[in-house]
Amino acid sequence: MADFKDITRLLTSGVPDNIQRLVDETHPADVLEAVQEEAGGDYKYLLALPDDFLADVIDEADDDDKYDILKVMDPDRTRSVLNRMSVDEIADLIQELEDDNKEAVIKSLLRGRTKTDVTKLLKYDEDTAGGIMTTQFIAIYASNTVMKALNYLKTEVDAETSYYMYVVNKEDYTLLGVVSLRDLVMAPFDTRIEEIMNTNVISVNANLDQEDVADEFSKYGYPALPVVDDNGKMIGIVTVDDVIDVINEEATEDIYHMGGVNKEEKIDGTVLESVKSRLPWLIVNLFTAILASSVIAKFDGTIEKIVALSAVMTIISGMGGNAGTQSLTMVVRALSLDEIDKNNAKSILLKEIFAGFLNGVVIGALVAAIALFYNFNPWFGLIAGLAMIMNMVCAALAGFLIPIILEMMHIDPALASSVFVTTVTDCLGFFFFLGLATLTMPLLM
Amino acid sequence: MADFKDITRLLTSGVPDNIQRLVDETHPADVLEAVQEEAGGDYKYLLALPDDFLADVIDEADDDDKYDILKVMDPDRTRSVLNRMSVDEIADLIQELEDDNKEAVIKSLLRGRTKTDVTKLLKYDEDTAGGIMTTQFIAIYASNTVMKALNYLKTEVDAETSYYMYVVNKEDYTLLGVVSLRDLVMAPFDTRIEEIMNTNVISVNANLDQEDVADEFSKYGYPALPVVDDNGKMIGIVTVDDVIDVINEEATEDIYHMGGVNKEEKIDGTVLESVKSRLPWLIVNLFTAILASSVIAKFDGTIEKIVALSAVMTIISGMGGNAGTQSLTMVVRALSLDEIDKNNAKSILLKEIFAGFLNGVVIGALVAAIALFYNFNPWFGLIAGLAMIMNMVCAALAGFLIPIILEMMHIDPALASSVFVTTVTDCLGFFFFLGLATLTMPLLM
Repeated sequence: MADFKDITRLLTSGVPDNIQRLVDETHPADVLEAVQEEAGGDYKYLLALPDDFLADVIDEADDDDKYDILKVMDPDRTRSVLNRMSVDEIADLIQELEDDNKEAVIKSLLRGRTKTDVTKLLKYDEDTAGGIMTTQFIAIYASNTVMKALNYLKTEVDAETSYYMYVVNKEDYTLLGVVSLRDLVMAPFDTRIEEIMNTNVISVNANLDQEDVADEFSKYGYPALPVVDDNGKMIGIVTVDDVIDVINEEATEDIYHMGGVNKEEKIDGTVLESVKSRLPWLIVNLFTAILASSVIAKFDGTIEKIVALSAVMTIISGMGGNAGTQSLTMVVRALSLDEIDKNNAKSILLKEIFAGFLNGVVIGALVAAIALFYNFNPWFGLIAGLAMIMNMVCAALAGFLIPIILEMMHIDPALASSVFVTTVTDCLGFFFFLGLATLTMPLLM
Repeated sequence: MADFKDITRLLTSGVPDNIQRLVDETHPADVLEAVQEEAGGDYKYLLALPDDFLADVIDEADDDDKYDILKVMDPDRTRSVLNRMSVDEIADLIQELEDDNKEAVIKSLLRGRTKTDVTKLLKYDEDTAGGIMTTQFIAIYASNTVMKALNYLKTEVDAETSYYMYVVNKEDYTLLGVVSLRDLVMAPFDTRIEEIMNTNVISVNANLDQEDVADEFSKYGYPALPVVDDNGKMIGIVTVDDVIDVINEEATEDIYHMGGVNKEEKIDGTVLESVKSRLPWLIVNLFTAILASSVIAKFDGTIEKIVALSAVMTIISGMGGNAGTQSLTMVVRALSLDEIDKNNAKSILLKEIFAGFLNGVVIGALVAAIALFYNFNPWFGLIAGLAMIMNMVCAALAGFLIPIILEMMHIDPALASSVFVTTVTDCLGFFFFLGLATLTMPLLM
């Protein structure tokens, strides 16, 4: 059942049979969405659900919404529901708290294995494999039989994936191999796990950056990967649903950074959050704008004599900025997707320069023609066209080199490239055009 | 084994035992990467692999690389390997061919079930669920016993996921439910599938856009989803590894469009492809640049009298462009992720305007101060600051409204927003500042 009206009707009816139908027939993600879209976001309606299902609903929510749902419950209910949630979701939630509150929450609200597991997960940076993994996986020993493994499966109802069972060493939990449920089902009951396990198991280190974890999933296509510590001890699994979130998050981060917005900003945030996210970036841009305008000011004598320069110069700087943005967009995305290396960097640079030159010739010719409308003098058209070509080639160079240099300096190229590139294209655009005009002044008057 | 040097050594050794070790111990994706990174991309080395494994290696490659690998084989080998590949990968490959060649390739190279399945897949648009699905799934009947289903599993070795078995109607293949392998293993052998199947199965229509398919995966977190036609007949499954590719592809598309690059352009493409991708966009931008410069030309009498205007005006238009880009970046990404709806649109607009005003006040005050360096007259500073604030508020309005209007008109907001927004901020920036200067001319001289 995924009709939000139906779900809301059943949920708000107060009839136990209806609630049971919801639990049996709907996905928790749909119940959450129904309340948010159909019931005006009033999370009180969720209180009618049994604790287990309510925990599943909260698992599906964003961090902010998780808090809002937990807020409508009394302390006893909160404790009960919280301990039924996925441990990785609880850890993410606690990660958001201030350091002083973290321990208090763990101490007062969590119990038993949930408490132990959440404490373990909190040791890892939230942007690493350890930060996105869960401890709810199925581990078996190599010496066990298939029968024993299948029986064990029945007891591990909370595991986030039951398709893979990970084979570990009894003593120190070293990851030895992996068995798929399919392999298990195909084998006779008395087969030992070591006979059917795949020892070429692909795992990720707990400290691996989440972007690199996503790359591993993208490369191998598995629905889950085991996470090991530096000693090869298995400590968790990352599941593909969390990886999808990571991929979306990393793409959003790149897009925000290229647009000059802080990665933490939310579309439905407050005015103050928005100002805090954007103002610093605007101030950085203001400095570069001043730089460009000071280039203009250097040539005010020239502009005073030929005022048409001031209309045409913005075309030359602006078009250079557009071309530079095109180059940097390609290069920044390619760096994000690991598509540039030593082998192809030189040929990409040459391609950018040559493409910049060709685009420059076409746009330069058009700009030259346009310039004649402002000042009917062939020399005026010629210097406009020349300045345009020169700026386009420099735009290509800057659009390629600046992201690469920033990456080498371990500065996110998505964040800083565009301000540097447009500074180059603005300043050089004005300089080439006004400089050429100053040199050829007698011909232009 | 994932050490590229080791893999390359085994692959190029020519010793059958070494090749067998590779097949047993490496993931096809690693063999592919080893050849690309370690063996200089010479795909001839792959010919030493047995056909089944070679087919798996090709499955892992990008479309372009798939062709390059197939090219090194003789026709007989090509036919043999091709028919062992995943049908969805073959279909993607054929999709790239010109229409005339498609049928010839299918007829001469494909056989049996592969031929039938690929032909079916080719009927769907490549950007839809049908275009990214595979026909290699496991379907069982509701009346079967668990025993029969488990036996059937042994015969379906090519299925892309064996964790879910889909329950269909015998007569017309209507999707009735889903059984996980775990449920199957837990149930007694003589249980009928209908007793344990989950009838609330979430499916996607074959014509659903791949972006919406990705949203379903992101929401529900399953490793695979069944695909049905308009009559509810099950025709395939989409697996999460293909969805990861879709998510990366859609993010790249948004980023490229926002940067003014065609979505088909590749970082390692040719100069001509690059020019073809970017020149049309530059020409569109040229028209908007002309528009902005014609606003300046209207005021050339004013600029002639106060030449400092020409240095300061580029700051006001440029900063407006930056602020407008910030707003549109947030809005375009939110539209992509379905985060804006009727409920929150008004409050987001108000937030944008108010944030634009606040940023405008701060940046406006700074611009007013800077303006005094160019022309020491308080009125000059005042009109620069005022024009800056007005342009920032308009930037916020344009950055919000333009993507929304484009989305309503079914034009990709990522593609066209930035050119419209910067047109607005350039033209209005010049108009506000030069207009105010013209009105207050006696005070400025």
